[in-house]
Amino acid sequence: MTIATQLEAALARADADMDQSLERLKALIRIKSISTDPAYAGECRRAAEWLAAGLREDGFEASVRDTPGHPVVVAHGRDALAPHVLFYGHYDVQPVDPLQLWNSDPFEAELREQPDGEVHIVARGSSDDKGQLMTFLEACRAWRAANGTLPVRVSILLEGEEESGGKNLPGFIGGAADELRADVALVCDTDMWDRSTPSITTMLRGLVGEEIEITCADKDLHSGMYGSAARNPNQVLAEIIASLRRPDGSVAVAGFYDEVEELPEAVAEQWRNLGFDEKAFLAGAGLTQAAGEKDRPLLQQIWSRPTCEINGMSGGYTGDGFKTVIPAKASAKISFRLVASQDPHKIREAFRAHVRERLPADCTVMFKEHGGSPAIAVPADGPYLRRALAALTDEWGKQAAITASGGSIPVAGDFKRLLGLDTLLIGFAHSDDRIHSPNEKYNLTSYHRGIRSWIRILAAFAGN
Amino acid sequence: MTIATQLEAALARADADMDQSLERLKALIRIKSISTDPAYAGECRRAAEWLAAGLREDGFEASVRDTPGHPVVVAHGRDALAPHVLFYGHYDVQPVDPLQLWNSDPFEAELREQPDGEVHIVARGSSDDKGQLMTFLEACRAWRAANGTLPVRVSILLEGEEESGGKNLPGFIGGAADELRADVALVCDTDMWDRSTPSITTMLRGLVGEEIEITCADKDLHSGMYGSAARNPNQVLAEIIASLRRPDGSVAVAGFYDEVEELPEAVAEQWRNLGFDEKAFLAGAGLTQAAGEKDRPLLQQIWSRPTCEINGMSGGYTGDGFKTVIPAKASAKISFRLVASQDPHKIREAFRAHVRERLPADCTVMFKEHGGSPAIAVPADGPYLRRALAALTDEWGKQAAITASGGSIPVAGDFKRLLGLDTLLIGFAHSDDRIHSPNEKYNLTSYHRGIRSWIRILAAFAGN
Repeated sequence: MTIATQLEAALARADADMDQSLERLKALIRIKSISTDPAYAGECRRAAEWLAAGLREDGFEASVRDTPGHPVVVAHGRDALAPHVLFYGHYDVQPVDPLQLWNSDPFEAELREQPDGEVHIVARGSSDDKGQLMTFLEACRAWRAANGTLPVRVSILLEGEEESGGKNLPGFIGGAADELRADVALVCDTDMWDRSTPSITTMLRGLVGEEIEITCADKDLHSGMYGSAARNPNQVLAEIIASLRRPDGSVAVAGFYDEVEELPEAVAEQWRNLGFDEKAFLAGAGLTQAAGEKDRPLLQQIWSRPTCEINGMSGGYTGDGFKTVIPAKASAKISFRLVASQDPHKIREAFRAHVRERLPADCTVMFKEHGGSPAIAVPADGPYLRRALAALTDEWGKQAAITASGGSIPVAGDFKRLLGLDTLLIGFAHSDDRIHSPNEKYNLTSYHRGIRSWIRILAAFAGN
Repeated sequence: MTIATQLEAALARADADMDQSLERLKALIRIKSISTDPAYAGECRRAAEWLAAGLREDGFEASVRDTPGHPVVVAHGRDALAPHVLFYGHYDVQPVDPLQLWNSDPFEAELREQPDGEVHIVARGSSDDKGQLMTFLEACRAWRAANGTLPVRVSILLEGEEESGGKNLPGFIGGAADELRADVALVCDTDMWDRSTPSITTMLRGLVGEEIEITCADKDLHSGMYGSAARNPNQVLAEIIASLRRPDGSVAVAGFYDEVEELPEAVAEQWRNLGFDEKAFLAGAGLTQAAGEKDRPLLQQIWSRPTCEINGMSGGYTGDGFKTVIPAKASAKISFRLVASQDPHKIREAFRAHVRERLPADCTVMFKEHGGSPAIAVPADGPYLRRALAALTDEWGKQAAITASGGSIPVAGDFKRLLGLDTLLIGFAHSDDRIHSPNEKYNLTSYHRGIRSWIRILAAFAGN
């Protein structure tokens, strides 16, 4: 049977099996694999085991491997010898708070038809990354069901610490390098360019996550008795946070932009030609104006410029009513998105120095590290990229775009550094998927045609 | 029987009944009357009913009166016709969080002997204000037990919203003005000057409580996708909070100091003579430097200068681990301590204008009022003040001091405005009582000699 015949058979099989594909996704979503909260460690393991069992059922050699944190699933299908692709996804999800903003149970996927006819799969992880990773697994399943064996050699790596700045994956990849080394890596954790345009992402921002806790007095104080006399850590923290940004929207940490390069004009031109609708992007979040560096196109602000965001902040009494307390402590979770060759270690140290320099008398600060990874850039050509672009273009009937992403997918850097592998970032999510937010959704079209897209990519890689 | 004989009998009775007095305080402490948290509304009512029952048992006409919030206890003892004193206390307490910092159950008073021999009654409300209000109630009880009738006409007003910026008491006092009008008001909610020096407080700061909630995007966003593009309410809130204080420690709200007067030199001199130990005061909170207005004596900073404190602050993800979210909202609880003739309404409006002026595009702010009261000053002489000073001096064997307090006791202003009454603020708490904090305590000496002090004050008021 020719590859073309096998492709058609696999696509037909995927279409026919959509109901079961959806049931399997719902089953995976039901497992509350919130990696950042230690209370859900058991659920993370359950997700890994569920995935490994499914992969074995589908003919892979699959196992759940322990790490100091959440386990990793490794699977190998030895159907063909070459080319060898390594697929990566993550089974862990973000916390679901604030729960009251969800319109349905975050862990029971609901299919909701929209006014425009699109159907949304609403649940935590429906898009990021359970829905996305399942597009690849279901593609393999359909291919094998239709044709017996896969047309390429497939290895699969599914981790459970992507949402919690997990530090264990690089070590694991390093340790399993011989087993994981392949010809190209595939990651399904990114967006399409728009509803109808598939894309391959070739630039990703890096990430530095930091938590700081500022302590002033040795106990909570009464603001009547101590107000004005005692240093208030809420005030200290607010002043430090305020000092992180200049009025022009740039980040004020010393040396922050040292390694940041201007976007090559060719790329800037390519991005301009994407016809990005800034107004519509902001309107999707209920906003009208970009908040970042002034006089930068918005696409540069989110794709190729670094930033600093306060992800969490807390101190003192935050319950109902009022309490006239001067707390002993206040804390914040702060992240930096990095670009180009900004060094996560150097940025972290520059931030810590920035905080220490601004600490008034009687205050101490504790820093806690929450992950760090450099930005990555993938060569925007090469045979795998070209074949994948063609396959995506075939499936969607529209020229696939080459784009960047403001998010961080540290594993792409790890694959390059530890395995010498380039990564193709191909995903079917949309910017309005509300990932990390209440009522996260994945379009049913993303799921269905995502599966079909991977089937076409497998065929394209197998062809001569 | 002469007043002197009755006084000795009452003092002896108070000494003999100390164990029962302590048991009654423990019973009151056991009732979890946290007024700011609606979940404890039933407990607040229970505290009111417990107090009314005790007062009736002690011969008062006592009743629990409903308000739109927590109930008020009113009691009258019609033993003598004159003079007529109105005693005020509050039965509600502050929340107990963070619970893990308590060394024992906050609602089960523990007696702990200290290395210096002093015994601490450790519990929420042991000092503020259950222990303090009980000194007066137990003084009346001892006097009546020893002598049959009280030497003065005593009315008692006990409220349950002092710790939650309750708005209902002024209305209640206005409505019950005919019933409550007396010759002088007594409040037991303040500190002694030091371990061995009793004091009467003649100046109190006022309070404005405000809660603000800033909303930017219409949902939580992923900081990878929106970082730098989307306005971050944590950052906005931090910048607004930072803008509230100038580097010299003063409050930067426009017009904030307009009504603030310099302390009369005579009072400043009197305060200097108190021999206040700034270092020791700060050391009591683990601090070494005052954080307020530069070049102001610390006693002025906390007694006669206004301030702004951030009592609570929260936004985004604050649980374990990390979440790269840009939240939709961030909020803070902010209070101002007022002095002299600063108008709470005007200060609140100036603050709101300050916030609105600094709100970037796409942000909205919601304000919520949490109480407001002007500062008050009581004439530092007059017959009741002189007699109370003498009685305190007799009990403690040391000249009683005339002091001020940085805290706010709005009821003193209400008594003046609505009943035309001056208030004597006499309390037996200490600055290290950890009120509003974990492990709040009241010295057993404060309780015992506080009871004895009130017995002497009743006698002093009754004498000719």
